[in-house]
Amino acid sequence: MNTLDIIKNRTSYRGTFKNEPVPREDLIKIMEAGLAAPSGCNKQTTSLIAVDDPALLDKLFKVIEKETINTAKAMICVLTQRVIAYRDRSFYVQDYAAAIENLLLATVALGYETCWYEGYITDVDAIGRKMADVLNVPADYELVCFLPIGVALEPITYRDKKPFAERAWFNGFGGFTEFSK
Amino acid sequence: MNTLDIIKNRTSYRGTFKNEPVPREDLIKIMEAGLAAPSGCNKQTTSLIAVDDPALLDKLFKVIEKETINTAKAMICVLTQRVIAYRDRSFYVQDYAAAIENLLLATVALGYETCWYEGYITDVDAIGRKMADVLNVPADYELVCFLPIGVALEPITYRDKKPFAERAWFNGFGGFTEFSK
Repeated sequence: MNTLDIIKNRTSYRGTFKNEPVPREDLIKIMEAGLAAPSGCNKQTTSLIAVDDPALLDKLFKVIEKETINTAKAMICVLTQRVIAYRDRSFYVQDYAAAIENLLLATVALGYETCWYEGYITDVDAIGRKMADVLNVPADYELVCFLPIGVALEPITYRDKKPFAERAWFNGFGGFTEFSK
Repeated sequence: MNTLDIIKNRTSYRGTFKNEPVPREDLIKIMEAGLAAPSGCNKQTTSLIAVDDPALLDKLFKVIEKETINTAKAMICVLTQRVIAYRDRSFYVQDYAAAIENLLLATVALGYETCWYEGYITDVDAIGRKMADVLNVPADYELVCFLPIGVALEPITYRDKKPFAERAWFNGFGGFTEFSK
């Protein structure tokens, strides 16, 4: 599939995974894609930890406490540092979000499925910090997202989205757009 | 090029553009890619305006006051709404950043170049709001980013990046990683 098809076919997969490994060379390709994302003022505020050690995965699953995750054969954890880009401005959220989108696309391009879990681990119960402790992440890094990775066992489904013509226009707000679907 | 190559070859192009049009069907494909990005709790907080009308582009160039932009044959402006996903949490920044990454990748996949301009128009001089006024954008939307689009006239260059091994690891912070480059 070409890039536009990969982008359109990517979806948030929340099902269980097949008992098939995710080779380390694929995890490396996925992380390289994530780190290839741009960052505000090139500050490169995003870092990544891939986990493929079964015992370590189990420790993370116990902290996450979300049963559908537990069949993932690998996981990528996304770390950020709130680095100032200039004056009082930091673009760390934009940086890691762009990196995560690349991680998702590379994962799908290599035949796996995944899902962006962020709000669940950055809420008041601070699951992300507990995961960070399992991974020996220093206090000046925040673990803001994890992506379970594996071969999908269940059918791929798509969420309903607003019609494109309600969200995109030509030459002014609400202008005419004829989308292909 | 496949998706991984597109991701690795994308760069922030700040040069001038050739006098070649960007057909509307390509702008539509690029916007469809942008809107295909995931959003927190599927709130779809990002909207887009493509500009290909020369007179309107000129009005925007006058507001932006950045000479290297003025040869772009088209532009995509990114709008956001600070919608609450749940309780007090909004993921609007993550949403538009993921959408922008898709816009960048689709632009490159179709043979054009572009650059993510955000800080420049969301600073104290509020250039983004002036652009929004030119495009009749309602007050409850913020114009946070624009992407000039065209065929590159100048050579493509890449910024220096930290070695991957300083930003990505296996099975714990600072763990071993052997990257392919």
